[in-house]
Amino acid sequence: MRTFIVKANKAHTAPDFKLKDLPGTSGRIDLLCRFLNSAFLLSHGFRKNVRVWLSLYGPPNPPKAIRFEGQEMKPKTLNPDELSTAKLIIRALKAAEGLKGPSKEVEVLPGIYVSNMTFEDIVRRALRGSTLYYLHEEGRPITDVSFPQNVAFVLGDHEGLRKEDEAFLAGIAQKISVGRKSYLASHVVAYVNIFLDSLTPPP
Amino acid sequence: MRTFIVKANKAHTAPDFKLKDLPGTSGRIDLLCRFLNSAFLLSHGFRKNVRVWLSLYGPPNPPKAIRFEGQEMKPKTLNPDELSTAKLIIRALKAAEGLKGPSKEVEVLPGIYVSNMTFEDIVRRALRGSTLYYLHEEGRPITDVSFPQNVAFVLGDHEGLRKEDEAFLAGIAQKISVGRKSYLASHVVAYVNIFLDSLTPPP
Repeated sequence: MRTFIVKANKAHTAPDFKLKDLPGTSGRIDLLCRFLNSAFLLSHGFRKNVRVWLSLYGPPNPPKAIRFEGQEMKPKTLNPDELSTAKLIIRALKAAEGLKGPSKEVEVLPGIYVSNMTFEDIVRRALRGSTLYYLHEEGRPITDVSFPQNVAFVLGDHEGLRKEDEAFLAGIAQKISVGRKSYLASHVVAYVNIFLDSLTPPP
Repeated sequence: MRTFIVKANKAHTAPDFKLKDLPGTSGRIDLLCRFLNSAFLLSHGFRKNVRVWLSLYGPPNPPKAIRFEGQEMKPKTLNPDELSTAKLIIRALKAAEGLKGPSKEVEVLPGIYVSNMTFEDIVRRALRGSTLYYLHEEGRPITDVSFPQNVAFVLGDHEGLRKEDEAFLAGIAQKISVGRKSYLASHVVAYVNIFLDSLTPPP
């Protein structure tokens, strides 16, 4: 089982943005769409052994957490293009309006859940069943790591994680790296998925 | 220098499609947008050592070839999101209207060229200065290949290359693979770029 967690510090937490201009109006929901594409999609296939957590911290109602559960999702729910994925996120944000309490999840579509969970809540849940890694260019090379069967990866958005998030992860997540350059989160996830597929047995 | 060539058999060769529905109306121009994203973009950076050829064979005026030359492009020309990249492709297809002759290129923007070149024309041009590889799930593992400094990679779209294209490549391109699964072209390009970055010296 592979879990990918992305903290998006500016991603809007209400559906108040324009599909026509995601980069300019949504706090980079477009980045999250490509992240989901890289996490789940194969050519004419779908990775059921993947879970994705989007941790949204932009205006107006942070935090929001959207969980995508590969084993429960219908494969045709997620399509490769950005706009159809952005519509799924909009649907989740609409379902979250009026949601009370810190951890109650609402099911938006089969396998897609939304809640007010914090980044810390998400990481603690991931820790219960998985070994946690923080993908960062200064980490240990991924090719030197021996992975267990259940793995969870934390990534930052285009601005990276905040210092307090890094402090929270220190001690509970191993810092690993796919290379010394600073790569787009969606590229890192595509690389990690293909790399993990090459292991015996693959996580 | 890295060259990525994608043959898109259904991609429209005139700007007759809807930005709101690229997957349904353009013959999968959305796939080409993500391909360009993976080829050129870093987090807050741009790969100047990359060239991309889009080889479009869909209706109504095939073939069209769009060349993106990293060394000449202004970094802000290409943005991560699909819609802004689709607008670049539309601009190139508009510039190609009325273009005569098989190989004359029109410069659309600095570093972006359009022509009526065929897939074979593109491959022959790439062969002049680069070693050619065909990325296919049945190829030799990329981790076993010793790469020279100038490399060119051919990829198919969501339907893969046609038999006649594969026959043309046999003998001039080495079949290599990033894994045994069938991956999306944009994921393969992201993987190849990160993998090549890890080599000493990187191509």
